[in-house]
Amino acid sequence: MADAVELRPIGRVRRGGTEDVSEVEVDDEFTAGLDGIEKLEHLWVLYWMHELDLSDRQTLRAHPMGDPTSPKRGVFALHSPMRPNPIGMTRVRLVERRGTLLVVEGLDARDGSPVLDIKSA
Amino acid sequence: MADAVELRPIGRVRRGGTEDVSEVEVDDEFTAGLDGIEKLEHLWVLYWMHELDLSDRQTLRAHPMGDPTSPKRGVFALHSPMRPNPIGMTRVRLVERRGTLLVVEGLDARDGSPVLDIKSA
Repeated sequence: MADAVELRPIGRVRRGGTEDVSEVEVDDEFTAGLDGIEKLEHLWVLYWMHELDLSDRQTLRAHPMGDPTSPKRGVFALHSPMRPNPIGMTRVRLVERRGTLLVVEGLDARDGSPVLDIKSA
Repeated sequence: MADAVELRPIGRVRRGGTEDVSEVEVDDEFTAGLDGIEKLEHLWVLYWMHELDLSDRQTLRAHPMGDPTSPKRGVFALHSPMRPNPIGMTRVRLVERRGTLLVVEGLDARDGSPVLDIKSA
């Protein structure tokens, strides 16, 4: 069995209303990592789906799009949130940067999700 | 400071010659997660850049494309491998599935990289 990998979140998702706009709050210690990000239009946000429990992580087959009439498939052949390492990965539009706060559109993460990485897209 | 997140690799990258073809060996216990994957043409492979050391993970600004004539930028505005959580993310073409082995084209991971997740692309 392979060694475990330990990640430390770099920030957190904040999501209020029903709009498709979220905030990514990056921890102060990583501020330098955001240099120049305001010039980008799109970003990849990698986050941890923290609300899944152990049984979700042990689910290896699921219905595509959660549709029970569609035959089950392996989770690695899907975008299902259920998977051994529930890393979410979304391409978002950067609306605005304010200091260590990124306002983004299109992020499908729940409020409070730990953010693992941000990359140019 | 946010709590650490622990991931367990689901497999490993095998890379031999100079060709742009790699193998992703998925651990036997995750076989069911591959059901139906042979029907897909493209996959996302998320892997751990295991050769980076702690100083790489503490680097928050880098030259774009490693070009020293280009001004440094924050790593979250780049695709640089240097970043606090060095998760690599590549869209690959699935050439062939043989049991728990996926032959893929276009994966820029080093030999031995732990694979964290596979998603349809």
